[in-house]
Amino acid sequence: MSSKQKVEILNVGNELLLGIRMNTHLSYLSKQLSALGLSVKHCQIVSDEEGAIKAALAVALKRSDVIITTGGLGPTVDDLTRESVACALGRELIYCDSIYQAISDRFLKLGRKVSSIHKKQCYQIAGSTIIQNDRGTAPGIAVEVEGKQIILLPGPTHELVPMFEDKIIPLLSEKGYKNQTSAFIQLRFCGIGESVVEEKMKPIAEKYPTLEFAFCVHLGLVDVRLSSTSKKIDSKKLFEIGAFCEQTFKEDFVGFGDVSLPEVIFQKLRKSNRTLAVAESCTGGLMGNAFTDIPGVSKVFKGGVICYANEVKVLQLGVPEEIIEQHGAVSSECAIAMASGAAENLSADFGLSITGFAGPEGGNSNNPVGTIHIGLHTPLGVWAKSVRYLGGRLDVKSRAVNAALDWMRRELLIQEGRL
Amino acid sequence: MSSKQKVEILNVGNELLLGIRMNTHLSYLSKQLSALGLSVKHCQIVSDEEGAIKAALAVALKRSDVIITTGGLGPTVDDLTRESVACALGRELIYCDSIYQAISDRFLKLGRKVSSIHKKQCYQIAGSTIIQNDRGTAPGIAVEVEGKQIILLPGPTHELVPMFEDKIIPLLSEKGYKNQTSAFIQLRFCGIGESVVEEKMKPIAEKYPTLEFAFCVHLGLVDVRLSSTSKKIDSKKLFEIGAFCEQTFKEDFVGFGDVSLPEVIFQKLRKSNRTLAVAESCTGGLMGNAFTDIPGVSKVFKGGVICYANEVKVLQLGVPEEIIEQHGAVSSECAIAMASGAAENLSADFGLSITGFAGPEGGNSNNPVGTIHIGLHTPLGVWAKSVRYLGGRLDVKSRAVNAALDWMRRELLIQEGRL
Repeated sequence: MSSKQKVEILNVGNELLLGIRMNTHLSYLSKQLSALGLSVKHCQIVSDEEGAIKAALAVALKRSDVIITTGGLGPTVDDLTRESVACALGRELIYCDSIYQAISDRFLKLGRKVSSIHKKQCYQIAGSTIIQNDRGTAPGIAVEVEGKQIILLPGPTHELVPMFEDKIIPLLSEKGYKNQTSAFIQLRFCGIGESVVEEKMKPIAEKYPTLEFAFCVHLGLVDVRLSSTSKKIDSKKLFEIGAFCEQTFKEDFVGFGDVSLPEVIFQKLRKSNRTLAVAESCTGGLMGNAFTDIPGVSKVFKGGVICYANEVKVLQLGVPEEIIEQHGAVSSECAIAMASGAAENLSADFGLSITGFAGPEGGNSNNPVGTIHIGLHTPLGVWAKSVRYLGGRLDVKSRAVNAALDWMRRELLIQEGRL
Repeated sequence: MSSKQKVEILNVGNELLLGIRMNTHLSYLSKQLSALGLSVKHCQIVSDEEGAIKAALAVALKRSDVIITTGGLGPTVDDLTRESVACALGRELIYCDSIYQAISDRFLKLGRKVSSIHKKQCYQIAGSTIIQNDRGTAPGIAVEVEGKQIILLPGPTHELVPMFEDKIIPLLSEKGYKNQTSAFIQLRFCGIGESVVEEKMKPIAEKYPTLEFAFCVHLGLVDVRLSSTSKKIDSKKLFEIGAFCEQTFKEDFVGFGDVSLPEVIFQKLRKSNRTLAVAESCTGGLMGNAFTDIPGVSKVFKGGVICYANEVKVLQLGVPEEIIEQHGAVSSECAIAMASGAAENLSADFGLSITGFAGPEGGNSNNPVGTIHIGLHTPLGVWAKSVRYLGGRLDVKSRAVNAALDWMRRELLIQEGRL
């Protein structure tokens, strides 16, 4: 393992510490860097203050080899990263006319005039390399200090992402910051508790004492990352362990890596040349959105109906009015009619439906807030299933979608004859 | 301003540094703490290693008054926060049978048996207060050290959130950690660049030199937070400045605070007693989902059709087949037919539609990947609009929804006669 591999992320921005924005940069960059075999060892998040940025940089320079900052390169007064880093390194800021030209050209194409405010972005740190920004005004900056790399990236995601992938990865690789990735596999489970997963894995842990385990639970999924930093366990052995887990955990095993539940369903339907339509009441499009995040899903996914109002359930899905009158729109009966209605009206082989009370209002004594009914129409029959979740509206929506997807995944396994 | 107000967050978890999970806890806690008048000054994210957790805690104890950790309280071997904090403070871990009882009771209710693995979670740090977890097995822990509070929260969001709101807020308040909130307002703009916003605000900045500005750009929205830490500018004056901005920026002003585009549309439709239906092709439910995140939206939102396949456009929305043949499914003509079809078939006053190529496949010479057509059906007529975005599939989807919502918001302003 090379010693030049410790990376630290320094996210700059009051909005992150005020809770106005989520720090999506950390997860994006960490994932990218992991793929290069570089590991992010620390992350600091600091406010838009010169003192805070300088202090964080000093700490980072002591312990890390590559320091990547995000944010604070914009044209407004609260953007201070460039200035603070220059000051911390004791380097001058030099006005650079070519940056001004690039900004002017960009604005000309957009039919806008450059505002004098952008002059602030035309300064580079002495001895640094300017990194062109193809999607915005703020160029990135790379500075080498005593063999360490400091890289300043702009805050907006649509500027940061292409800059990182097109410019920074080659730069890091050129400077020798690329390691052989250490062997690891990630296993994903659903419908099973974290502690049960660990207990079932005990024999593996005992057999391979150098194997490292990392557990992560989110929204009903349990991820387990198995790695061997010492490299005593090679990739081949890791894959064998993965295959063993797949057999042991049966239908609770979802797949390897970050494979999502909709992706598993997509792959299974694609293989058997079947199609799917959805009907969503309380989840309002969240499940359809999950499927349509998958590139090429149109081969399988026909579409769906967001039947928020009862009349939409009747008119677009053909749910009989009597069912809604007798059983209510939040009922297993309605979920079944919605699932079959989606499959039939959208000419799909499978129909998956969700109806429920996401809250905070609504619900009744039989079906309190958080009650969800799921309907599944398949070529072999149609079924309903009910679940109940605590939590806020968005939480209930997410968990309902997760439950519907996991149920369909298990049903497909059964119909494939694999269980 | 009280001196007892510096809060530091310490997120523990390899999954955060490996990019497997987004750090949603920071934005949640920051927002909650801001509302209490406490400001998060620093955040450190560290791996599940005793050394890393201890080092981060030592740094935090030097500069902060309240330290909140998240994660690492679970039952698995990589959960080390409790143990590391105890060790760093030189305190013993004491087995606590009441915790074991609480976990057993919880499992009994769920029809499960406690696994011996959970014994790990039954230790409390000597001299600490146990904080009951109503949603999971890991209790929280509060320790006071030299007048500073260290609070350990569990990692899963659905456990952390209720524990923070029901137990930690009262605890902080009881210990005197609650400040008068400093006056601030947040203004949200759309369809205008960050630099233009700042330039238009220059007269305000000049008139009020003690006013602090923080800018944040995300997905076509520009947020500006105006605050007065010195309290030289009071709330009343801030609201006057807000009203002045609203007038100056006209239709580019979206609203105050975190108000979302769907919320603005919801409020306007609610006021005029009108209803809305959507039709989504490439965005696949994302727009419907944005509306249905709003509690009580059913008063306005009828539902929608996710018309991913062309036959669904024809069958569910009545889009004439000739339009698809002549102009293609990705065309202004199709967007218009979809919008009117949604309004008419779902009995709504307004219909909002999106069709386009989200990529990475698809597109043609007239409509390359990233081309989006939006249709808007209103009681006064129906229009289409085209936009084009660079970026990945998910980015294009989000921007398309944003563009559709912003256009409808502006159209509603015009129809209200306010422009």
